[in-house]
Amino acid sequence: MPDARSAYAELLTRSKKRSVFGSLGSLLGWDQRTYMPKAGSAHRSDQLALVAGMSHEMATDPRIGELLAIAEASDLVNDPLSDAAVNLREWRRGYDQATKLPQALVEALSRTSSKAYDVWVEARKANDFAAFRPFLEEMVKLCREKADALGWKEQRYDALLDLYEPDAKTREVQALFEPLQRELAGLIRRIVATGKRAEPGILENDYPVAVQETFCAESARAIGFDFDAGRLDVTTHPFCSTIGPGDVRLTTRYDPRCAWSALYGTLHEAGHGLYNQGLDPEHRGTPRGASVSLGIHESQSRMWENLVGRSRAFWQFFLPRAQAAFPVLKGKSLDAMVFAANESKPSLIRVEADEATYNLHIILRFRLEIDLIEGRLQPADVPGAWKSTMKELLGVDVPDDRRGCLQDVHWSGASFGYFPTYALGNLYASQFLEQAKSEIGDLDPMFAKGEFRPLLDWLRLKIHRPGKTRRAGPLCQHLTGKPLSHQPLMRHLNAKLGALYNL
Amino acid sequence: MPDARSAYAELLTRSKKRSVFGSLGSLLGWDQRTYMPKAGSAHRSDQLALVAGMSHEMATDPRIGELLAIAEASDLVNDPLSDAAVNLREWRRGYDQATKLPQALVEALSRTSSKAYDVWVEARKANDFAAFRPFLEEMVKLCREKADALGWKEQRYDALLDLYEPDAKTREVQALFEPLQRELAGLIRRIVATGKRAEPGILENDYPVAVQETFCAESARAIGFDFDAGRLDVTTHPFCSTIGPGDVRLTTRYDPRCAWSALYGTLHEAGHGLYNQGLDPEHRGTPRGASVSLGIHESQSRMWENLVGRSRAFWQFFLPRAQAAFPVLKGKSLDAMVFAANESKPSLIRVEADEATYNLHIILRFRLEIDLIEGRLQPADVPGAWKSTMKELLGVDVPDDRRGCLQDVHWSGASFGYFPTYALGNLYASQFLEQAKSEIGDLDPMFAKGEFRPLLDWLRLKIHRPGKTRRAGPLCQHLTGKPLSHQPLMRHLNAKLGALYNL
Repeated sequence: MPDARSAYAELLTRSKKRSVFGSLGSLLGWDQRTYMPKAGSAHRSDQLALVAGMSHEMATDPRIGELLAIAEASDLVNDPLSDAAVNLREWRRGYDQATKLPQALVEALSRTSSKAYDVWVEARKANDFAAFRPFLEEMVKLCREKADALGWKEQRYDALLDLYEPDAKTREVQALFEPLQRELAGLIRRIVATGKRAEPGILENDYPVAVQETFCAESARAIGFDFDAGRLDVTTHPFCSTIGPGDVRLTTRYDPRCAWSALYGTLHEAGHGLYNQGLDPEHRGTPRGASVSLGIHESQSRMWENLVGRSRAFWQFFLPRAQAAFPVLKGKSLDAMVFAANESKPSLIRVEADEATYNLHIILRFRLEIDLIEGRLQPADVPGAWKSTMKELLGVDVPDDRRGCLQDVHWSGASFGYFPTYALGNLYASQFLEQAKSEIGDLDPMFAKGEFRPLLDWLRLKIHRPGKTRRAGPLCQHLTGKPLSHQPLMRHLNAKLGALYNL
Repeated sequence: MPDARSAYAELLTRSKKRSVFGSLGSLLGWDQRTYMPKAGSAHRSDQLALVAGMSHEMATDPRIGELLAIAEASDLVNDPLSDAAVNLREWRRGYDQATKLPQALVEALSRTSSKAYDVWVEARKANDFAAFRPFLEEMVKLCREKADALGWKEQRYDALLDLYEPDAKTREVQALFEPLQRELAGLIRRIVATGKRAEPGILENDYPVAVQETFCAESARAIGFDFDAGRLDVTTHPFCSTIGPGDVRLTTRYDPRCAWSALYGTLHEAGHGLYNQGLDPEHRGTPRGASVSLGIHESQSRMWENLVGRSRAFWQFFLPRAQAAFPVLKGKSLDAMVFAANESKPSLIRVEADEATYNLHIILRFRLEIDLIEGRLQPADVPGAWKSTMKELLGVDVPDDRRGCLQDVHWSGASFGYFPTYALGNLYASQFLEQAKSEIGDLDPMFAKGEFRPLLDWLRLKIHRPGKTRRAGPLCQHLTGKPLSHQPLMRHLNAKLGALYNL
């Protein structure tokens, strides 16, 4: 058996190899959603399945367990913030998770996801929940089994949440979401009561796609995205995919009648991209050089999309540029533009929701998911629960399942536990930005001049470069001196929307 | 130990897995040359090296040798044209090849290629043969070792040629090229003596790139390329890459002053693409469902590019379409267009050479390669040998090495043995097309109406669908009743160029 240092060295080599190998899957996925011809999909499934299977094999090699045991029993872990201790902590987590899941369950989840996705696409199109129901039932069953295989103490949903947001507990997230929901509901009620609407001609008009493409790329470049180490392409569902260091790819989609979904989609994905471009290249292929969690990742995308991209200061800089690109914006005032970029109204579709109401869409899904996983809600009753919860939280009547419980892809892919990270990201973003401002000073005059680098440098130093040194909770405590809270986000929304709606 | 049928079944499974795994490398390579951002190249090298290393591991697993021995000793090989016998024959070839090469040599070749490529790129730019010379020397040395490791009987070059054109012998290729060179030289001398030139305004004019893109894609579609199962993108060096069944990707490059290099590049790559789209999907991932050899592959690309795409009948159909796309062609006659598409003149650069002189560029490289590998020519003497052979074969003075012996990428990548397959492709193409016409009837009236399907169907049936059932030589004998000969190509060139130049 090797000594602790040799064991650690071998674990490093294996980690880097697994990382390069896993990145094959990233390229397969990116290509599948951008350029792959449609008849290539059967072979693509074979490629993805092979890479997934071999990745799982590499991740569960018993040799890893032996090496971990040796290294963990040494002084390598004395300083829990050292590179070695951080890597060992995260390798242990990954190894335990991977080895806890029986191969049969992994395969059943993968097989069912594949089918469920196809069924979901058709069911959504046809507004046919009955067609999707058996797959949702199977998914819930398999995810309950998965949670039990992974293990949990307080409640079953914890095990799934932990997959996407390590160490997060359902009870704690509920405690964050409860006041958030209450305060948001009040804010939104007051907004709705004003009846105030964006000036016509901004949100909908003629926005030539070719011009949007250039404008979006320039906007991403302006906030710091490096196009020598990345790309921007077109897809149906925007995403950010990292193929490797120096290769971070964004996608967005263009609507010739509205430039803003493409712009904010680009800023959002560029926020993810900036995080990945900012990871420490010296530690690539190891946890020390990887992002913290989905919630922290989302904090970066939401920060650039919403906190920066919808600010008045941002538009002070960008409006003249947007007016040069899109003649239809000539004569529109800064006030009108900022209001349009922040218009808030309860709506049916999560991905089209504004910055404030968005969080209630997440809280709805979080509540339903917990009830499904804990067995308190039957899949057959999801459409009804969706409708009543939408009414309760947003005051909206859901006309059909297509625009209700069939709108999201996540459940077809077994991603129970994923949704809450979106709202956690909003909370982290606000709390981080408050802290950044308290350290750097007022950022708005900088944004108004197109200077986004001071904020990016702060994020790089405090969040991107340290990688997984700290998990999300400790990172938040370390950076802001406080645990995560709903208050910074509410302060931000109350201030911005309060001013725009004269509340 | 398994019985013969179980052994064969396991070999099938392994073959399909290796094929899917290898196709990861195809996507990596395609992406590297189309969309990868430049800072992604270091990670891309890591990905490619990992896939290559793991592929080699899979291909040399001793278990394959054991299984082969069992299956080969059974009645599975009784009928040499049966699927099982074909697969076993080719697996044996691949396994023996892979296991004969020492790991150290494989790694040295890969390491040196990587460096040599970078050096070659710079050396070509700077017209600096001295910089490339040590790498050429190392490459020749390693390729001689490789040939010796693979084994040969008559001469060392046979072992390298066999890698690209299985069973081909240097002596036989020399016997084909000798009369080809003699007859071509005579034809080209007579052409040069006419002094006849293409009508101005066709070869060079304004050809907007966006229009070229549409025109090239429509041309590929017209000859049968399926865009539901493929793509056409832009690169510096056109190629065809098959990611998998249903996913065949072509690339070309556009010159705004000349539409024809993009068009013929597209037709050439589409010829490769049609072959790959025509392979039997039932046998995918096995030799029975794979292409025969580089020479046979090239016969398909050259057939569509030259024999079809430069024919008068092709232009009867395409000229009105080209005139609709490119206003500068209005008023140009069919005669003028056909002449321009076939203009023949000795030139310096292989990839820009016309259909007739092209073969002499290949013969030059073939002669130099043999002499290098057999030790009769020193790398230091290559520039001189290049110049004197160009003078001898094409009557051309080579002004510098950039346009001489530094023009091609092949030697930097250890691809000694590859060049002759280009000219073999021309020979096979002509012999196959003569046969197709003798079976189907006169194809020209069909081409003139845009009916390319009868030819494609013949190629599908006779060449694409049978996969590797027969190797190149036996396939040619089987289809045409004769061994490969230079005569069909010379008959074709003498007839076409004789008419165009009034010889």
